Amino acid sequence: MFFHKQELQFKATPDKPDAVYARKLQEVLGGQYGEITVAMQYEFQAWNAHIPGKYRDLLYGIAAEEMGHVEMLAIMIAQLLEKAPLGITDDAVQSDPTVAAVVGGMDVQHAIVAGAGARPVDSNGNPWTGGYVTASGNLLADFTSNANIEMQGRLAVARLYHMTDDHGVRDLLAFLLARDTMHQNQWTTAALELQAENMEQLPVPSNFPLNKEHREVSYQYLNFSDGEHAKEGSWAKGPAPDGKGEFSYHDGPTTSAPMPPPTRPDARYYGTTDVPNPVEKAAGKAQDKLKKE
Amino acid sequence: MFFHKQELQFKATPDKPDAVYARKLQEVLGGQYGEITVAMQYEFQAWNAHIPGKYRDLLYGIAAEEMGHVEMLAIMIAQLLEKAPLGITDDAVQSDPTVAAVVGGMDVQHAIVAGAGARPVDSNGNPWTGGYVTASGNLLADFTSNANIEMQGRLAVARLYHMTDDHGVRDLLAFLLARDTMHQNQWTTAALELQAENMEQLPVPSNFPLNKEHREVSYQYLNFSDGEHAKEGSWAKGPAPDGKGEFSYHDGPTTSAPMPPPTRPDARYYGTTDVPNPVEKAAGKAQDKLKKE
Amino acid sequence: MFFHKQELQFKATPDKPDAVYARKLQEVLGGQYGEITVAMQYEFQAWNAHIPGKYRDLLYGIAAEEMGHVEMLAIMIAQLLEKAPLGITDDAVQSDPTVAAVVGGMDVQHAIVAGAGARPVDSNGNPWTGGYVTASGNLLADFTSNANIEMQGRLAVARLYHMTDDHGVRDLLAFLLARDTMHQNQWTTAALELQAENMEQLPVPSNFPLNKEHREVSYQYLNFSDGEHAKEGSWAKGPAPDGKGEFSYHDGPTTSAPMPPPTRPDARYYGTTDVPNPVEKAAGKAQDKLKKE
Amino acid sequence: MFFHKQELQFKATPDKPDAVYARKLQEVLGGQYGEITVAMQYEFQAWNAHIPGKYRDLLYGIAAEEMGHVEMLAIMIAQLLEKAPLGITDDAVQSDPTVAAVVGGMDVQHAIVAGAGARPVDSNGNPWTGGYVTASGNLLADFTSNANIEMQGRLAVARLYHMTDDHGVRDLLAFLLARDTMHQNQWTTAALELQAENMEQLPVPSNFPLNKEHREVSYQYLNFSDGEHAKEGSWAKGPAPDGKGEFSYHDGPTTSAPMPPPTRPDARYYGTTDVPNPVEKAAGKAQDKLKKE
Amino acid sequence: MFFHKQELQFKATPDKPDAVYARKLQEVLGGQYGEITVAMQYEFQAWNAHIPGKYRDLLYGIAAEEMGHVEMLAIMIAQLLEKAPLGITDDAVQSDPTVAAVVGGMDVQHAIVAGAGARPVDSNGNPWTGGYVTASGNLLADFTSNANIEMQGRLAVARLYHMTDDHGVRDLLAFLLARDTMHQNQWTTAALELQAENMEQLPVPSNFPLNKEHREVSYQYLNFSDGEHAKEGSWAKGPAPDGKGEFSYHDGPTTSAPMPPPTRPDARYYGTTDVPNPVEKAAGKAQDKLKKE
Amino acid sequence: MFFHKQELQFKATPDKPDAVYARKLQEVLGGQYGEITVAMQYEFQAWNAHIPGKYRDLLYGIAAEEMGHVEMLAIMIAQLLEKAPLGITDDAVQSDPTVAAVVGGMDVQHAIVAGAGARPVDSNGNPWTGGYVTASGNLLADFTSNANIEMQGRLAVARLYHMTDDHGVRDLLAFLLARDTMHQNQWTTAALELQAENMEQLPVPSNFPLNKEHREVSYQYLNFSDGEHAKEGSWAKGPAPDGKGEFSYHDGPTTSAPMPPPTRPDARYYGTTDVPNPVEKAAGKAQDKLKKE
Repeated sequence: MFFHKQELQFKATPDKPDAVYARKLQEVLGGQYGEITVAMQYEFQAWNAHIPGKYRDLLYGIAAEEMGHVEMLAIMIAQLLEKAPLGITDDAVQSDPTVAAVVGGMDVQHAIVAGAGARPVDSNGNPWTGGYVTASGNLLADFTSNANIEMQGRLAVARLYHMTDDHGVRDLLAFLLARDTMHQNQWTTAALELQAENMEQLPVPSNFPLNKEHREVSYQYLNFSDGEHAKEGSWAKGPAPDGKGEFSYHDGPTTSAPMPPPTRPDARYYGTTDVPNPVEKAAGKAQDKLKKE
Repeated sequence: MFFHKQELQFKATPDKPDAVYARKLQEVLGGQYGEITVAMQYEFQAWNAHIPGKYRDLLYGIAAEEMGHVEMLAIMIAQLLEKAPLGITDDAVQSDPTVAAVVGGMDVQHAIVAGAGARPVDSNGNPWTGGYVTASGNLLADFTSNANIEMQGRLAVARLYHMTDDHGVRDLLAFLLARDTMHQNQWTTAALELQAENMEQLPVPSNFPLNKEHREVSYQYLNFSDGEHAKEGSWAKGPAPDGKGEFSYHDGPTTSAPMPPPTRPDARYYGTTDVPNPVEKAAGKAQDKLKKE
Repeated sequence: MFFHKQELQFKATPDKPDAVYARKLQEVLGGQYGEITVAMQYEFQAWNAHIPGKYRDLLYGIAAEEMGHVEMLAIMIAQLLEKAPLGITDDAVQSDPTVAAVVGGMDVQHAIVAGAGARPVDSNGNPWTGGYVTASGNLLADFTSNANIEMQGRLAVARLYHMTDDHGVRDLLAFLLARDTMHQNQWTTAALELQAENMEQLPVPSNFPLNKEHREVSYQYLNFSDGEHAKEGSWAKGPAPDGKGEFSYHDGPTTSAPMPPPTRPDARYYGTTDVPNPVEKAAGKAQDKLKKE
Repeated sequence: MFFHKQELQFKATPDKPDAVYARKLQEVLGGQYGEITVAMQYEFQAWNAHIPGKYRDLLYGIAAEEMGHVEMLAIMIAQLLEKAPLGITDDAVQSDPTVAAVVGGMDVQHAIVAGAGARPVDSNGNPWTGGYVTASGNLLADFTSNANIEMQGRLAVARLYHMTDDHGVRDLLAFLLARDTMHQNQWTTAALELQAENMEQLPVPSNFPLNKEHREVSYQYLNFSDGEHAKEGSWAKGPAPDGKGEFSYHDGPTTSAPMPPPTRPDARYYGTTDVPNPVEKAAGKAQDKLKKE
Repeated sequence: MFFHKQELQFKATPDKPDAVYARKLQEVLGGQYGEITVAMQYEFQAWNAHIPGKYRDLLYGIAAEEMGHVEMLAIMIAQLLEKAPLGITDDAVQSDPTVAAVVGGMDVQHAIVAGAGARPVDSNGNPWTGGYVTASGNLLADFTSNANIEMQGRLAVARLYHMTDDHGVRDLLAFLLARDTMHQNQWTTAALELQAENMEQLPVPSNFPLNKEHREVSYQYLNFSDGEHAKEGSWAKGPAPDGKGEFSYHDGPTTSAPMPPPTRPDARYYGTTDVPNPVEKAAGKAQDKLKKE
Repeated sequence: MFFHKQELQFKATPDKPDAVYARKLQEVLGGQYGEITVAMQYEFQAWNAHIPGKYRDLLYGIAAEEMGHVEMLAIMIAQLLEKAPLGITDDAVQSDPTVAAVVGGMDVQHAIVAGAGARPVDSNGNPWTGGYVTASGNLLADFTSNANIEMQGRLAVARLYHMTDDHGVRDLLAFLLARDTMHQNQWTTAALELQAENMEQLPVPSNFPLNKEHREVSYQYLNFSDGEHAKEGSWAKGPAPDGKGEFSYHDGPTTSAPMPPPTRPDARYYGTTDVPNPVEKAAGKAQDKLKKE
């Protein structure tokens, strides 16, 4: 169960309205790596968890915080939009190209659809989609996904920081940056703990029997481009981090197989084959069958 | 530039047709973590790279391999579909519920749209979307995304391994599992190397000045659920992996702010306010303005 | 801010596993009118609200409850999937077409992607999208949307009730049906109260000056099909519910205007016009301009 | 069957070109609540109707009108775009930031893709989707959806009215506003008539046996936020509008259930469990089974 | 304007219910190449047309017919679903795997969402999208798109013909096949007429000045794969159909350019560069600027 | 298998940065008819081909070239963005509305998400989707689709040519225009060759037995609009291009059928019927069954 409190975790009030920036801020609310994604992702991971205890509690523990971050951003966006320049027909606009630029640069659905309110979309107006969520049941894979989300998310917030000099907005971003710092550290730690407790290892899933994969290609770096430098990396020689093999470097593939012949499905799919055509000239069984059917 | 060779990296021929399995295999071709995603993601990361040398060469080096994996899966799927039971009207179907089940379980667009061919969709028929791709320009963030993709992808392949006993299919999956083992190790190594070379650290982006974030909450585990066990994890005490702080544990938020008052946008957005209504009874300035405009 | 408690509002445990039903239940979790929609919609309406007090409190008050409903359904789905028949290769399957049918009828991404877990998608596997959310800032419009959601949602739950005889599932559905009963009543009441308090009336938005619309067609029922019976309804005669006009009935349109001539955009759009072509034969100014540019 | 006449229901010619406004107008053509939605929704409701007579005739009767509204808007948009400033490279642009703003604010696909023509998208360029359509077969639910669409649609038109001072555009909007007034009244009337004729009641679906739902929570307002004012509404006390119960107010949930234990699916899903790992150390049956399989 | 008549262009009544086939039939109603696409595409092409007369009249003339085809298919689907086996809990199902297979093979949203009605989606349940529509303003390009749609559409109908032996369904398909024959011929004819009247030629757009393109590669077949046989086609030698050049064959590219160096955007994007890191060790100007900002 | 070479087919370097144009160029990279579409479409057509030899080799032969075009555009876009004006807060912006216009006109995700890099989206920021791809197995249908793609694509490139005067950009576009000229000619030739070799004819699919379609309407132009001029076209009289029939012209439909009665599905779908309601007053069997169930 979830309970709501009409307070925010941090103050979220801009110094001044800025409809163009409101659009940009949508990215970290409803984008691929926005707060809706983190909130929903951690919740689904908790609901799909297979063991009780600290890992599931961890997921539940921050999912609700993230939903509160969605709220802070929505509240901030609504305030940035409060004075959104709906009145493009005013004389001021005609004589002031900056106003025209603002109208061009804002999310016009903020005005037309939401009446100066926030929306569950990204900064280009693409609606948030459940396709962003990862919850596989394998915690090492999922914590790695979580670390990635927090990195991409903090990156977007850092970029947004430089796109405004509004102190109120920057203050909120400074808070979110700090929480993203925590969450990057947290998921990294949790992934290490999973491995330290021997619950999962590289390669994920680690309890799939390794003898069932083609081990001869498990540590080969195969270079399918003509760059000279990939061989210099530690992925091209030395021990692999899973502790189970040694990297080697190869120019191109070490295996190959002939291309199978084209498929020849049922004639009733009407694909193009080398059976003569049209029907009148066809003598084959397939054609006869088609006619009779 | 890309060049194609009419060979496969590994043989991809099933023992027998299996239209239901063909649908399942679409997941690792065109799903969120399928081969189209890895191919496109590595290519965009290479195109958006900011430094020449081993990291960019690495990205170019395996992007083309992954496009070949898309091909192997497409070729395999077409063969699994070669004998797809289009003829649901045959007597056999009526008397054999297994055939009916097959028709129900297959991707019907494989038959109707692609004429027994592969498609750029996932196992539920959702088209592949560019929204799956991550290429931020920050390599530690992106390599973490890549590690995640390879983990989620290997997980799906491992699950698919148990959903068939076709030796041809399993042989291809055993090859893909091995390559995913390589790629998990590779991205993990590359992420370590980036940090060892001091090009990027936790928290990403590490050259955003830390003094600009609210450092007092950068290492606090805030428990927004009532689970007792999250505090037992190493994310709740001890040094954080970024080497810059010490974790602490807190029941709930350590900060709060009053909810800002509701916004009151321009009357011409026609949102609901406490100004009396309808127009005839309104005395306020906003209403007068509306009438005159 | 949101807080989570590791309890459910109602028990959500099935009598037995049922992977096919788990897929169906996704509709009311992640479908157009599922619980994610109601939770997100009420939250955005609250965040975008323009007045403090009972209406905004109402929105906040049930948004969090609905997020808990998402949780109950996710937990239920995970349990229905706990014994999902991954092992289609077992001998049992070959000889038992019912098992084959189950595999065909389940959401295969439940197995391949989520490892027997719930997902933020509908019963056909379409990801939930922010495009489902309505939060316009006009409360009479939005409460009508809310009433619609609760009606469509209760309808889906009622249909799902008859698709299982699992007592655990039916018990949860019986709870959700009752809450939907409450919420239909609630939004209907809230919409009436808005009107009673004269904050909004039909037609929405009611403070748009009526004299600015073409009042002569504001109460005309125009019949663009040839059915005889539409004229029998109370929408074709008598007073309109907005109290401001009288319905009338008309066979077809009461107004018409000639189709404007086709547009003739800039030649550099290369649309098809009646200017002769190809370039070599063109003598017109547009062509000359193109060549010189 | 549908028949087309090369006339418009109302004149749709702008005074002057305005590419930025053309983009905005797309919202009411191809947005969530645009004319394509109403046309398609009423048609699907008619096709899925279960009774002949006035209700189905009503649906058929206005569906075709709405398709004509799609046409009027498309024709208007094409005219607004007729002089769209493709030539951003001209000197005029460099010296006139207003032109630059226009180019930035228009839908660039209007120029690049449609050659100065209308498109089936919303004002942010999101393609119209069948996911907007509601046609459940239950007419009270669907008429409520229709009323909502007409409200949201009229709201968007009213907002758009203030974003231009072009007389031709405003004249068309004034016509559409009037028709939306009619349609809001019409669906409200039709919903009342359905109830008056006892064909459907609250709660929808009203013929689901009420004794099968958990009646004890059917009229409880449960406050999951800490707002003080929700209890003041008529949804918190007094008779419910369905005439079958009495509202009551409660702080938080009146029921609860313990969270079920985490699920433990088949080992072959490779989710994270507390079985030790990696494979070499596993002694359990699941692991042995995996190795042998 | 559009007018509706409560008749169908052809009878659309199945012999017997078939919920699985109803799902398949959705492909030609709401799929990429279904009837909604053709209806909307021809309408948008007409609305965006730049010349009056026979071409625009042609587009208007069949757009309305196609909307009637949408209707025939929707009506047919509703009838196929009329007896859809909602009652999976009945004893019959348990003992009859064919019923289970039917439930597995049908579109479950047909039951849960539409109450046994048609939906604006394809056979995999993906909603129809405006992204399918092509209306560029260039008629030769668009008529080629139209010819393609009619080909792909007739192909799907032909495949569907063999997936049922219901005489009522086949009769409707036989009608649609004939109309698709007409429309393939029609668009082919219209494309030829455009060229005969010298309104457009290959290459489209033909009035783009050819001297502005790199003519040296305009007729080169460049073979980027290692197949031996592409050189045998008439696209590799002899005159090109545009009458303006001669094909030639080449193994691989005839031009090349060095890859430009990686881009080095503003430091505030926080991409990975070879500037040392973290901040503390950075001495460069970019870092200083970041700290001070 | 695919191999990559770190060279471009043509130089792709702009004279100067232009973030607004970078957004526009995304259309031909990731739009409906952009280079990702052609690359993926030709690959899937090759993988799904049913015959070896020149047609399959042709598809393989240019698919890889097109992937290289994706690369050229991505590289170009990254360079156009290299100096993207992230710093909207600088004083320059406040005093220079042109800068504001640029920020408004660019794809803000280029900055926030990709850090000044290219993305797999169109010029409105819609992600590329597998729904754009056509690969039916029927080569005449698919080659017609290919011809259409190359026409629509060249049209977009031609329009984009006039939206910039950057010599570097125009030079790349001039190269792409030439390759599109080749590909339009190529697919036209290939389609003719298929017919000359009697492998496929109009109407597609030509081996579906014509006697199974309703031949009486196979060559009728049916005018569903009131335009006078459609009858003047060669599609309304004379021989059809398939050589199998003669066109005729008709005002409106030549066939019709009564609308079937509405469907009456199972009562448990809770659609609206004329059975009285609510439950208490119902005497029918359906209601009794509902109560007991």
